[in-house]
This record gives sequence, structure tokens and C-alpha cells, in this order.
Amino acid sequence: MPLVATSNDVAKLAGVSQATVSRVLANGVVSDATRRKVLAAAAQVGYVPNLGARAMKTGRVDTIGVVVADLTNPFYPEILDALTTTLNAAGQKVTLWNSDGPGNDAALHAIRAGSVDGVVFTTVTESSEPLREALARRSPVVLVNRVVEGLSCDQVSGENREGGAAVAEYLLRHGHRAVALLGGPTSASTSRDRGMGYEAALTGSGVTLEPQWNQRGPFTHEFGFRAMTALMTGQVVPTAVFCTNDLIAFGALDAVRSLGLSVPRDVWIVGFDDVDMARWPSFDLTTVHQPTKEMAASAVRILLDRIADPETPPRHSTFSCRLVVRGSTDHAHA
Amino acid sequence: MPLVATSNDVAKLAGVSQATVSRVLANGVVSDATRRKVLAAAAQVGYVPNLGARAMKTGRVDTIGVVVADLTNPFYPEILDALTTTLNAAGQKVTLWNSDGPGNDAALHAIRAGSVDGVVFTTVTESSEPLREALARRSPVVLVNRVVEGLSCDQVSGENREGGAAVAEYLLRHGHRAVALLGGPTSASTSRDRGMGYEAALTGSGVTLEPQWNQRGPFTHEFGFRAMTALMTGQVVPTAVFCTNDLIAFGALDAVRSLGLSVPRDVWIVGFDDVDMARWPSFDLTTVHQPTKEMAASAVRILLDRIADPETPPRHSTFSCRLVVRGSTDHAHA
Repeated sequence: MPLVATSNDVAKLAGVSQATVSRVLANGVVSDATRRKVLAAAAQVGYVPNLGARAMKTGRVDTIGVVVADLTNPFYPEILDALTTTLNAAGQKVTLWNSDGPGNDAALHAIRAGSVDGVVFTTVTESSEPLREALARRSPVVLVNRVVEGLSCDQVSGENREGGAAVAEYLLRHGHRAVALLGGPTSASTSRDRGMGYEAALTGSGVTLEPQWNQRGPFTHEFGFRAMTALMTGQVVPTAVFCTNDLIAFGALDAVRSLGLSVPRDVWIVGFDDVDMARWPSFDLTTVHQPTKEMAASAVRILLDRIADPETPPRHSTFSCRLVVRGSTDHAHA
Repeated sequence: MPLVATSNDVAKLAGVSQATVSRVLANGVVSDATRRKVLAAAAQVGYVPNLGARAMKTGRVDTIGVVVADLTNPFYPEILDALTTTLNAAGQKVTLWNSDGPGNDAALHAIRAGSVDGVVFTTVTESSEPLREALARRSPVVLVNRVVEGLSCDQVSGENREGGAAVAEYLLRHGHRAVALLGGPTSASTSRDRGMGYEAALTGSGVTLEPQWNQRGPFTHEFGFRAMTALMTGQVVPTAVFCTNDLIAFGALDAVRSLGLSVPRDVWIVGFDDVDMARWPSFDLTTVHQPTKEMAASAVRILLDRIADPETPPRHSTFSCRLVVRGSTDHAHA
């Protein structure tokens, strides 16, 4: 028996054509009797079908897992689009998981089964189980967008702290002192870092972020709407509000409109991400631009490098973010 | 040699522990020498690793391909979210392809390689190559959202024609006669059927859709914006415009605002899909609600049924759609 059997050996032993062998192994339509005969022959001669053979030879399945969160936040479809396009172009299949709901378990299962060569996490917190599992198994992993301090793995992110600081400096330069923050959860590094950069720059200029003007909630339109309504119906109202992502800012803009007020006349609003919709006239949102496509491409390159050479030391790659001034602030005086 | 070798047989022959065999086969970190020894032993005793073994036994890889289009159209993230959640809950992995760009080739390749058990197409036209390939190979396929007439495969869709007719009837009931249509491409069944239902209902009431008020373009905000600007700056302007999806309607709303006009005072706008954003105060869009989650769940059920029993006759499953009246039309008089 040769060391590596071929499908021809299987065909001969089973007394069928090579095409039938291929059909059985490629999930085609054959009778149960034929399937059994072919599988018995394959086992006997030690034939491993292509997919398995390649996986056994290289240890790779050419499949990358991508973990996303809430797809109704327009940031995620944009980064998912960029990741999928880059991965497909590199000959990789993409297995998608949504970390809300059953996706987390599915991701864990796939990592354990070795059915992906690596995982891109676009959303993650310290307590993420699939991330911990992937790292424990030494599976190649890259975090894009979110970072986890002290974690020994590849990470790609925007310069969130600097972006938050740029917003504060812009508002201060235009004379704002009564400023507020509507932030996502502090467990998300993006939100935490953007808020820290903002607050530090304010403090550095002697401006205090009042506790009642420093609100945290989920990254949703609904939170932005509710929190902004509360801010604008208080006894004293802020003159400018920084929302740590665009989706919260859209909710805040809607709240202002629903109260019969107007932006930027009554209050300035600034977001973060610069999703496609931010430039729509409905929103015309001043926001911090993240180079989403470049971040996705970089994450893919880093992950494929690591798969090729697992011994590469972990890299942290950061992309600078720039303020894009539009109509939700007084862009005539930018 | 037993007919079906176990990993224990491999371990004995290679002179390593069973854990080492597992590590080699599960894509773990081992030396090249160990990997070679284990793989040679596996081939010799005819051992097939689990993934391959399961695929050989059942002919299944528990992976479903999902083909989506432009993820910046908020309809796609919503249906993708519903499909992924349902598939993960059913123990299926999801391989994602974007039919724009390299995703089409990747889908074709995976279908040929048998690396998915079936494919959900959320966007497809008669000329789709992956669809033709899947059908030629008798791979289980379900179309959700889009339909292709005369195609012998499972299809799930909203009642697009009835939805379009309901819009026409609503506008006629409120006295509109100068009505327009901003439609997506006619190669998309959704757009074609919605437009046909709309036009037929108008014609049935003696109202003609003027050719210059019947515009077609891509399913984008930009097309809606541009086409609506043209409509509203013409010599005669329509009093109501039906856009065959919400994204076009958002563009149309933005165009009206940018012209300093207002909705519904100067013109009524109606969309189709009822994506989450349609209810945001920024848009407050009257639209036709598609039961996206139910359609996705139904498509998954039908596809898994077909994989289990390939002889089931193809089913066409349609879901009724209802008009949701909001502020982009005169909802006080709905």
C-alpha cells in the first residue's frame, strides 16, 4: 500500500469510478450502498479526502472567524464589509459570528474544533470567553477596533484617546465650557479611551465635566436619544455634547429635533467613527474619522502573517483619526 | 487492521501520546518532525480526523454559505443578523460572502469544493454565477428576499407586488394623482415586483405613471438623492413619491430637505423594507414593513429541511407585508 493513497486506489478497491468517489467525498448525491462501499474502501487504503488532506498537511483550513457585535450599529457592517473583501481576496473563507446571542458559543466551539485558522475580534472586552479560549489554545487572534490592555496578542485600533482629545480641543477653541459626554459602556475600550482623551484635554484646560453631564449607556440610537433628551431638559443645558460613537450621536440629533430645538444653533453635537451615514444631510455630523478600511486590511495582514509564522512577537498597530467638521457644529467657523 | 482506525492506533504506530495526535489534527503547535510522523501513521492505519470523518459519514460539514450584497444598505445587516442568529442556534456555521467584489468567486469556489452544505442567497439575479453553479451541482439553495421566476429551487420572499399596490392605493385614497416612482434596478425582483404592483394599481384607477417620473437606479442613498433632486426641480413636481427601498427613500428625504422643502408638506415619500432606522425621527418614514426576521427563520428551516431530504419538492414561501404610516406622509389623515 503506498504511504499516501489516492482517490484512484479507493475507486479500484470499491469497484466504482473515480467520479463516484469524488461525488461521495464532495457531498454529492449517491445511493447509501455506494456511499458505504466507497467510505469503507477509503478507510481501508487510508485515503483522506482533499479538504482533510490539506488540513492534515498544512494544519490549515483557509478559514478565518470574524466576531462582530450588533450589526444594526452601522460601524459593524462597514468593518465587516472591509474584512470580508480583504479576506476573500486573500483566498480565505470567512466564518461569521455575532457575539450577541448564540454566536459566542458557536465561536467557542469552532475555536475548540480547530475549524478556523484564526479569529478577528471586532468587539471584545476583557471577559470575552471566545477570546480567552483562543489565546489559551494559542490560536492566532487579532483584535481590531477594540483593545485589551496587557493582552499578549495582535491588536489594531484607531487612536481613540487622541481622537477624544481632538474633540475637546476643538470645542474649547470655539469657546465651549458647558460640555457633556454621552459615552458607550466603559467595558468597551473604544468608548473608555475616547472619553478619557476628551476628559483629560478638558481638565488640562481647567474645564470640568460635570457628573450629571457624563452619561454612559449602550452604543445605541435609543440611549443617545434618551440621554440627550434628559440633558436638554435639565435646569442648565450644555452647549456642546461629544458622543463616543456616531450611532449615539444620531440618537442625540434626533432628540434635539424632537424637542423643537436645532443643531448647531442650540447645541453642538460631535460623534466618533465617521460611518457613511454621517455625511448624509439628515445628520451632517461632525465626527472623528476612523480609517476603517485600512484598519481592516491591516488586521487581515497581521493575522495571516501570524498564521504563517506563529512565533512573530505580538504587534499593536494604531491608526490616527482626524476630526471631520460638518453641520452639526458651527462649521462656518471651523 | 480494523476497518475504522482510531486516534489510538495512530498514537501507537507513531509512538506518541493520543494528546499529540489530537494536537496535530486540531491544528495545534507541534514540531514538524512530530507532525510528519503522526500524519504518516494516520495515512498508514487509514485514520480520518473527526471533521473529515463526520463529513465522510454524513456528507455534511454543518456550514451554510450566506451571500449578501452591499452591507451599507441597512436591510442586509438586518437580514444577515437574523440568518446568522438562526443558523448558529441550529448548530450551523455561517460562511459569509459579499456578492460585490471577490465574494462571488469565493462563493463559487466553496460550492465547487463542497465546503458548504447549502447556500442562502439574499441577493441574486437570473445571471448570478454562484446560483447557477449551485443549482447545476444540485447543492441545496434557498433564495430569500429575491426571487427568480421559473427557477426550480426554494424561495422565500415578501409579497412585493401586493406591497407596491398597497402604497398606490394609500396614495390614491388621499387624492394623489401626480405620483412618481424611484425604483432600484429592474434586474432585482424586489424592485421590479414592487414597481409593477404600484404601477398596476395606479393604472387600474386611471392614473398614469409619467415616464419622466418613473426613474430607475442603484439601491443607494445617492441615487435617491440625485433622482429626487431632479424630480423636485422639474417644471411640474409630483405630490407623492414611492421609493422601492428605504435607502432610496432616505436619499429622497435628504434631497427634499437640501432644497429647503419639507416632507410631507411639499411632497409625500414612501419607502419599502421598514429597516430599524425608518422609525428614527430623522426619517420618520412611511414604508412597507417586511417581516425580515420571520423570512430569515423560514429560509433557514427550508434549507435545513432540504439538506436533510434533498427530494422535497421546491417551495415558494411568501410573507405578507403591511404599510406602516409615519410622518413622511400625512399620518394625521391615515
